[in-house]
Amino acid sequence: MIKIGERINGMFQDIGAAIKERDAKVIQDWAVKQAEAGADYLDVNTGPAAADRVKAMEWLVEVIQDVTDVPLCLDCTNYDAIEAGLKLCKKPAIINSTPAELAKMERVFGMAKDYGAMVIGLAMNEEGIPKDADSRTALAMELVAYADSVGFPIEDLLIDPLILPVNVAQDHGPEVLETIRQVKLLSSPPPKTNLGLSNVSQKAMHRSLIDRTYLVMALACGLDAAIMNVMDKDLMDALATARILLNQDIYADSYLKA
Amino acid sequence: MIKIGERINGMFQDIGAAIKERDAKVIQDWAVKQAEAGADYLDVNTGPAAADRVKAMEWLVEVIQDVTDVPLCLDCTNYDAIEAGLKLCKKPAIINSTPAELAKMERVFGMAKDYGAMVIGLAMNEEGIPKDADSRTALAMELVAYADSVGFPIEDLLIDPLILPVNVAQDHGPEVLETIRQVKLLSSPPPKTNLGLSNVSQKAMHRSLIDRTYLVMALACGLDAAIMNVMDKDLMDALATARILLNQDIYADSYLKA
Repeated sequence: MIKIGERINGMFQDIGAAIKERDAKVIQDWAVKQAEAGADYLDVNTGPAAADRVKAMEWLVEVIQDVTDVPLCLDCTNYDAIEAGLKLCKKPAIINSTPAELAKMERVFGMAKDYGAMVIGLAMNEEGIPKDADSRTALAMELVAYADSVGFPIEDLLIDPLILPVNVAQDHGPEVLETIRQVKLLSSPPPKTNLGLSNVSQKAMHRSLIDRTYLVMALACGLDAAIMNVMDKDLMDALATARILLNQDIYADSYLKA
Repeated sequence: MIKIGERINGMFQDIGAAIKERDAKVIQDWAVKQAEAGADYLDVNTGPAAADRVKAMEWLVEVIQDVTDVPLCLDCTNYDAIEAGLKLCKKPAIINSTPAELAKMERVFGMAKDYGAMVIGLAMNEEGIPKDADSRTALAMELVAYADSVGFPIEDLLIDPLILPVNVAQDHGPEVLETIRQVKLLSSPPPKTNLGLSNVSQKAMHRSLIDRTYLVMALACGLDAAIMNVMDKDLMDALATARILLNQDIYADSYLKA
């Protein structure tokens, strides 16, 4: 599974302050820590509060790449900021994200092809996030169809069915799992699937338990990637165990140390 | 989910000794502890070593019913012992189990109808346990067809796809999950599904972690019941969390206390 470290996000107070003050050390510490914890990509999100998101993204990409060669997942609703980041990325990145809306898909898939990036496509459009699995899958189908129409490799598209917090939208949980199952049947090869995992436990008690339980269920349904708290040892252990039980890694008594 | 407490089994040293010495207190302590921990049924297994399994089963059923009214899951390959137990059960029991073999199905479903019991049907026959999901499902279909032919209610049949230890038969893990999914589509109403959960972690390290990870994955695939270690608090918490995330119980911050 592709583990995308979530922590370099301006919504976290320390990251927001570090971006404002251009304090590279805070950012770099999180980059190194997440890389050491096993992140395959690092999410990079300026947060909505950054004064100039283009310049903030450029700065983040540069200071992170000074300390790690883990590739980046550029996460911003401002596509100029994403493009500025892509220009600086030394390794193929992930663009996070586009909804199933034509103008946005045009811009995002265009950039992705120019810079050899993967794309996270969200199961939403101008009307918001649908509740049921069939409607989410229909939006995923629009993303797949658009990607195909412009010659973008489907296996580089990560469909994110958008999990919402269990304490406010509990009925979405099983629908998102069913969407993951359905999306894996959409095409051959199928698109990948992704979750912004920590959303499921926003403002809930027992966050780590909820995160790892949902991750394990999603893996049983075919999940390929998650933006997640890679610093959570219990979450990483649950992931390693699920992979063993799905026969994706070879069992050894010492598998948790690997 | 139907939680069947696994602990009263002659394979455990203390239970084996208690059966031999007819030491009711050991048995009754485990009956009460498992009932308090939330067991919906108590598995009762004399173990293969018991001198007279008919008498051992009768004794077990009586001493357990003296301290709890949780119903029983009579678990024995000796069907005379099962029938002797059924005669004493005050509440409808579960018969554990029959494979997809005609003579055994005749005896087991016959007893089940006579005593109003549920039946665990194993996805195996004279040739053993198949490896792949399709073959397991085919055996499940034979159990469903037989039950249907004798007028046994399909929703009282629990299909057990037979999970094997991950450290010796790792490739069975995903096949059993797929079998659970397929069995839930076999008929309308579908049969229930069951796992002997602790088998998955036999002689492995990290038993509790492996058990709860597999249980959560199986729940995402539609599992209805498990013979399990109800004394494992982490396992019970994982189960409660999975039910919340599948929208089967209503979320509250205090859901773990419920």
